[in-house]
Amino acid sequence: MIYFDNSATTKPYPEALATYTEVATRIWGNPSSLHNLGSQATRILEASRKQIAELIGKKAEEIYFTSGGTEGDNWVLKGVAFEKAPYGKHIIVSDIEHPAIKESAAWLKTQGFEVDYAPVDARGFVKVDELARLLRPDTTLVSVMAVNNEIGSIQPIHDIATLLEDRPTISFHVDAVQALAKVATEAYLPERVDFATFSSHKFHGLRGVGFVYIKEGKKITPLLTGGGQEKEMRSTTENVAGIAATAKALRLAMENQEAFASKTQQLKEVIRKELASYPDVTIFSGEDHFAPHILTFGIKGVRGEVVVHAFEEFDIYISTTSACSSKAGKPAGTLIAMGVDKSIAQTAVRLSLDFENDMSQVEQFLTKFKLIYEKTRKVR
Amino acid sequence: MIYFDNSATTKPYPEALATYTEVATRIWGNPSSLHNLGSQATRILEASRKQIAELIGKKAEEIYFTSGGTEGDNWVLKGVAFEKAPYGKHIIVSDIEHPAIKESAAWLKTQGFEVDYAPVDARGFVKVDELARLLRPDTTLVSVMAVNNEIGSIQPIHDIATLLEDRPTISFHVDAVQALAKVATEAYLPERVDFATFSSHKFHGLRGVGFVYIKEGKKITPLLTGGGQEKEMRSTTENVAGIAATAKALRLAMENQEAFASKTQQLKEVIRKELASYPDVTIFSGEDHFAPHILTFGIKGVRGEVVVHAFEEFDIYISTTSACSSKAGKPAGTLIAMGVDKSIAQTAVRLSLDFENDMSQVEQFLTKFKLIYEKTRKVR
Ligand SMILES: Cc1ncc(COP(=O)(O)O)c(C=O)c1O
Ligand SMILES: Cc1ncc(COP(=O)(O)O)c(C=O)c1O
Repeated sequence: MIYFDNSATTKPYPEALATYTEVATRIWGNPSSLHNLGSQATRILEASRKQIAELIGKKAEEIYFTSGGTEGDNWVLKGVAFEKAPYGKHIIVSDIEHPAIKESAAWLKTQGFEVDYAPVDARGFVKVDELARLLRPDTTLVSVMAVNNEIGSIQPIHDIATLLEDRPTISFHVDAVQALAKVATEAYLPERVDFATFSSHKFHGLRGVGFVYIKEGKKITPLLTGGGQEKEMRSTTENVAGIAATAKALRLAMENQEAFASKTQQLKEVIRKELASYPDVTIFSGEDHFAPHILTFGIKGVRGEVVVHAFEEFDIYISTTSACSSKAGKPAGTLIAMGVDKSIAQTAVRLSLDFENDMSQVEQFLTKFKLIYEKTRKVR
Repeated sequence: MIYFDNSATTKPYPEALATYTEVATRIWGNPSSLHNLGSQATRILEASRKQIAELIGKKAEEIYFTSGGTEGDNWVLKGVAFEKAPYGKHIIVSDIEHPAIKESAAWLKTQGFEVDYAPVDARGFVKVDELARLLRPDTTLVSVMAVNNEIGSIQPIHDIATLLEDRPTISFHVDAVQALAKVATEAYLPERVDFATFSSHKFHGLRGVGFVYIKEGKKITPLLTGGGQEKEMRSTTENVAGIAATAKALRLAMENQEAFASKTQQLKEVIRKELASYPDVTIFSGEDHFAPHILTFGIKGVRGEVVVHAFEEFDIYISTTSACSSKAGKPAGTLIAMGVDKSIAQTAVRLSLDFENDMSQVEQFLTKFKLIYEKTRKVR
């Protein structure tokens, strides 16, 4: 099996799974319990929080655990919008956000909020000058992702941070789900960022665990209320084992981040170069300011699903541009926002590489690509 | 160690953990992926859903996975309230609901909804006639728990179902977190129930997984929007391993439910009989219509925390009446609602037994209880 679909999900590190099992077997108490078993669980929970915070250069008190990227995105969008509603009901999200953001924004519209979408240029980068023009006195939140999940463009978070520097009442949220441990944290987590969303299963951690960075002092209405866990900000009995496994996975992934970046970049460039030599191939992922591991392309006239299934025959797993839109057969929202014609956007497939991939897999991929390219010639 | 705190959380079944590890190691794909690894994950996901549905006598299409009881409660309260807001903005919850319900209701109040609290009698049962008087033409939701988490009273869900029989536009939600696999499903899941919340870690499944039963055709606004998983009702990459482990745990727990009930009931009655012989002991949990495994009592004049810590010294783990209120040191909301004086309510501690407990543990508990009772005599 060749797995080039690491933006959809990653294989859990065995070490992270071992931590999970260890904690779930030995320290399974409820952190809220007053007795020993509870305090042991609390210690693991807080040690994990501290480790994760350090790994992203933040304070432990600024990390709040969630069930994943979608909850984090929903929480920040809805939580900040409702919290700040007395001051304004206008928010801005980029036009290439993940559905977890876009759908949250769409729901807010049904609740009397106004939403503007910051456009992107033809290469898939938010146009900061146009975003600037959308800012209003009643704007309370700007949300722009760090790394786009469909083509890998690294968004100009620093430029947006500069833009918002003298507008301290506007909260700035970054969906960093596809960025963490793939690109350097500095690239997307400058001081001006108030909120950031992360998801464990994208960096070889476990499904159903994520966390949100909330800068000290920043206000947000809880989405999950109840027993008052996470300092009254996000209730539910804490998934201590999953959180400890997340800390473990993040440590391993961060230690490896530079090696990951250089290795996947190298593999990607080999693929890019080869694919570029086929006349009917369109490459959507650019070279500068792109995540090292994501390459999105299409074969003219051939729908993405067809290419995905053709590779599947060879036990090579790739994706249409995002896992969650793939079943619905929707064309890639990012490409449409970039101005790519719908018929071209529908051809897109995404490769998302991992440190575990190697040159021999790349060669196999390219060999099979040649076959698929020729086989689909008749439909083109 | 003697663990009598099974309402706070339970030890995961080794079999459930084994399922988790197996799925997370071998079938870790994203169910939304179009390739093989995705379809394998989808098959496990749907097989788990089907199994869980059958175990509670419902259809697979009526089960939606969540991150736990708190999310389920928040989703149903907020989701139904918002969904039905055009028809009415009045909801009723019982006065002894878990904070996941009460805090959700409190938040809805800040959003222009009206909330009434159905009172309970001195034994801890919702007064159905008083609930009836609270019903209004603009009532959209009634939420009453199945088994109270602080004293174990089984609420009159059937009577409420009968009351609501000819009011089909009112949604009826049951928080069944403490009931599932402890008491027979028929006791709290009659046909009239439209929504019910469940949490895996309360029946030896895993933390961070739960599910909501939504009766076919019943409408609810999603709380987590995004990629469109769970039929567009609850987005996020599915925690397939956690869900498969939940199905496994539920099967084991349900197979054992009758044995669980008769064994824990027997142990509990031994404890009750002995404790009742101490003049300064108040027993809060009644005998009829109570869950088999929960016994809440207090030593007059001695705060619950003191008793919890005294038992902890002997490696016996019990709880003040609920894990999540324990750290805040709040008195038990259920006892207050029952009309128990605050000073008495503060003495309450809860035993919550499991099938794994046995008579020798009960004897050790009672021996230590005698010591603690005598040692605390001077403060009384
Ligand atoms: C950019 C982005 N945001 C959010 C999410 C949602 O993450 P999760 O699957 O953990 O809910 C994803 C994953 O698909 C993503 O790529
Ligand atoms: C009655 C009841 N509802 C909801 C919850 C919340 O469940 P979870 O911890 O899975 O969020 C609990 C658990 O503490 C409970 O006892």
